[in-house]
Amino acid sequence: MDITLTREGLQAIDDLLLDTLDSEVELLTDASRHIISSGGKHLRPHVALLSYLAAGGDDLLEAVSMAAAIEMVHTATLVHDDINDHALLRRGRPSVHARWGRTFALLTGDFMFAKVYELMAPYGPTYNVIMARACSELVEGETLQAVAAKAGAIDRETYKRIVALKTASLFEGSARMGALLGGGDERVVDALADYAYNLGIAFQLVDDILDVIGDPVALGKPIGTDLAQGRGAFVTQPNGQTILSLRTTEDAAAATAAVADVVAVAEAVGEPLDEADPVARMMSKLRTSGAIEAARLQALEMIDRARAALDDVPPSTARDELMSLTSDVLDRDR
Amino acid sequence: MDITLTREGLQAIDDLLLDTLDSEVELLTDASRHIISSGGKHLRPHVALLSYLAAGGDDLLEAVSMAAAIEMVHTATLVHDDINDHALLRRGRPSVHARWGRTFALLTGDFMFAKVYELMAPYGPTYNVIMARACSELVEGETLQAVAAKAGAIDRETYKRIVALKTASLFEGSARMGALLGGGDERVVDALADYAYNLGIAFQLVDDILDVIGDPVALGKPIGTDLAQGRGAFVTQPNGQTILSLRTTEDAAAATAAVADVVAVAEAVGEPLDEADPVARMMSKLRTSGAIEAARLQALEMIDRARAALDDVPPSTARDELMSLTSDVLDRDR
Repeated sequence: MDITLTREGLQAIDDLLLDTLDSEVELLTDASRHIISSGGKHLRPHVALLSYLAAGGDDLLEAVSMAAAIEMVHTATLVHDDINDHALLRRGRPSVHARWGRTFALLTGDFMFAKVYELMAPYGPTYNVIMARACSELVEGETLQAVAAKAGAIDRETYKRIVALKTASLFEGSARMGALLGGGDERVVDALADYAYNLGIAFQLVDDILDVIGDPVALGKPIGTDLAQGRGAFVTQPNGQTILSLRTTEDAAAATAAVADVVAVAEAVGEPLDEADPVARMMSKLRTSGAIEAARLQALEMIDRARAALDDVPPSTARDELMSLTSDVLDRDR
Repeated sequence: MDITLTREGLQAIDDLLLDTLDSEVELLTDASRHIISSGGKHLRPHVALLSYLAAGGDDLLEAVSMAAAIEMVHTATLVHDDINDHALLRRGRPSVHARWGRTFALLTGDFMFAKVYELMAPYGPTYNVIMARACSELVEGETLQAVAAKAGAIDRETYKRIVALKTASLFEGSARMGALLGGGDERVVDALADYAYNLGIAFQLVDDILDVIGDPVALGKPIGTDLAQGRGAFVTQPNGQTILSLRTTEDAAAATAAVADVVAVAEAVGEPLDEADPVARMMSKLRTSGAIEAARLQALEMIDRARAALDDVPPSTARDELMSLTSDVLDRDR
């Protein structure tokens, strides 16, 4: 049976993920299914499936295992992130870390990484190399972020590198693998990869915006956590100090030329805070500083680049869907 | 250039590992090379290379990337284990966890897992499926061990399952992948897999013995840690109690019929200890209980099975080396 609708494809991915995560060790089945079935957006596998179709593929079943592997990688890193961030909530549920504890969260993430090999096994070296690269870069981005947050030194260049590595790389890899499998020629494959890369950057910018102004209920997790931990687009943290403060940009509207400029909006100046909750105060300042608008404009610019990249992709329903995904990413509330 | 000597093969593995772990994020390069270059025994890749040769392979270069992937998996799990075990020493050096902290140890392990995809990419689906299975089982074994230790309920059957999953599976997979790549027929592949499975069980039993009677300097880490954490062959821990005690077997010599019988040697009976260091006291009791000898006899039985499996492998220098590895495993002090 051929599958040509992405909705059916996404359902097939979920079925395959749940099936793959069946283990003789009950805890691993329970913990990994807990996070996999918690209503993730499936944006990366969606990009993979649509890229497959947009590049000329005609049976989504071919791409299901690969797309499932992509979602598995993403989910495994969430489980490990929640350990490092001491996060208690994820998608409106207790995180694996909160529910099963650190040891089992670590092992659950490892189990999911191991299952990625299984899901990717049917594909050849080309695909496995792309997947390997995306995974390494993802971990490199997370590491760079932790290094910079610890040093209290997230500057523009570092923020750009972090976002490119930790988020855009897996988006790009998803599109590239999907497009290659769909039989796209080099120009189409590169265009779809370019689309996804920019979509990924925009996605992360919106993520950082939602950490400040999002609705915790819709997000399924508390906001302000990136701020509190000295990460993301909006804050740097003085090295070794718990005193945090912000300086508004003199001209927020000018701070839109590059992703990195968003960082310039908020800088640590070491001014002591007298409020009980410095994070709440930082968020309040950020909301009135023009920084949110600057970041949104930047996200919009990345979305424009993603849309422009689709010019090199032949018209199709899938291309239309990729186009409408760009609006979803920009306007999302979770 | 063909490589036919395993020594050269092992050197090529180390070179490839160091090369693969080069990252633009310096911390990942440093931390992963720290553990990779700390003088591991390389037993699993050694088994892979020798199985390749024993099955008829004539250019070890073919097997180097796969064998490096095997060592990478093993090493990644050590890094993550040391987080869960709060271990400060590994191979005579600070553990990654001790030196770089938990967050970076977690990410370093993930980075190494990601690099496994890259090293395994050149091989086809058959090999990746075997690798995926070995990795999943390894994690399943670790998880089962943590579940049982937490519940204070490591019984015979559970101990057998743990050892088979967490240790024997990757040994078996190493031999199977090597033998398949070397072009062995089904009988030879199965024989080498059987050899490695039993070698792996013996290896783990000796590991548990060394945790009680080993020399910390030779081992490069403290002893007694498995005992203290309610794991391994020799001890169960009453649920939720810090009181630990041991009962010597009435007839240690009889406790050799199966791996599981080793567990029967030491049981928690809830007898309070009045000494300052209960672990030291447990170790002292174990050493005089006959339990060590029982476990050694059991390890010897598994080694005998490994040796017998080699009967189905055609004579060769590599087969001789596999035979002599069995003595190395039994007599090792680290």
